[in-house]
Amino acid sequence: MSEAPLVPGTVAEHAICLLIKLGQVAFRIAEDDLGEFGLRVRHYSVLQALADNGAMSQLALGAFLRIDPATMVTSLDDLEKVGYAMRTRDPQDRRRYVVDITEDGRKVLVRLNSTLVGLDDELLADLKALDRKSLHRIMSKLASGPTVPGMFDALRESTDTKKKA
Amino acid sequence: MSEAPLVPGTVAEHAICLLIKLGQVAFRIAEDDLGEFGLRVRHYSVLQALADNGAMSQLALGAFLRIDPATMVTSLDDLEKVGYAMRTRDPQDRRRYVVDITEDGRKVLVRLNSTLVGLDDELLADLKALDRKSLHRIMSKLASGPTVPGMFDALRESTDTKKKA
Repeated sequence: MSEAPLVPGTVAEHAICLLIKLGQVAFRIAEDDLGEFGLRVRHYSVLQALADNGAMSQLALGAFLRIDPATMVTSLDDLEKVGYAMRTRDPQDRRRYVVDITEDGRKVLVRLNSTLVGLDDELLADLKALDRKSLHRIMSKLASGPTVPGMFDALRESTDTKKKA
Repeated sequence: MSEAPLVPGTVAEHAICLLIKLGQVAFRIAEDDLGEFGLRVRHYSVLQALADNGAMSQLALGAFLRIDPATMVTSLDDLEKVGYAMRTRDPQDRRRYVVDITEDGRKVLVRLNSTLVGLDDELLADLKALDRKSLHRIMSKLASGPTVPGMFDALRESTDTKKKA
């Protein structure tokens, strides 16, 4: 089966169909490899955001990563349980709590990042260096928006409204 | 929130993380729009494969689209229920059954394809024509393999083995 295309026939004419299928494969591969650390992709995102930004409130973290509050709570519980993140007093306002990455969290983050670099190399092995750069640049542009983030936010809002209705 | 990037900070350095997140947004948007026809992305793939290839056995269809047998059965049941596909005698071997697209299926497929063309235009609105072409070409290359389809097949096999174990 390995020779058969991942997105066969006319379906591959649609960029959106290619993106969906490649994204699904990327997700399964990443979940599989990060699973060896007992973590999922979303745990990596949380740790990386905390390393990038410093301590954040749970609300700010959820907004930054577009992760809904319920998923954020369980993700933080998971990370606290293994000692990679902790809820702590906000240094700017001692009455509030913020989330921060721990020393162990920083250590595992280094290993997660090298796993992801390795996965990029594996996943993109069929591309020449120039195409690989172009792909990264074009996807970064799409992710920077405004269109795609806006579409996603609109969809999340409409789902929230449906849930509440 | 629409101004905030979809994949923030250092996470966006990994092509695999961009692919995962853009793929998730593409999937949710496509499911939302195809939902107006009472269909999901996988139903579109099945109808398109039948239109591309003519009647196929359920097994061949599943292998072609890399859809597991259980999901394939429910997808075909859904499509039969709304009259877009039907199980019929194999003209090459009257003792066997094959799946085929119906006239109504062909009609809805035209509308699904124009919906997907419209979604490509919406989703990729932030890209110049040249980048849009490059993105399509590079993603087609990745989907054609051998690496990504091979990785996906290996992962599916290992999941099957775990399930059976």
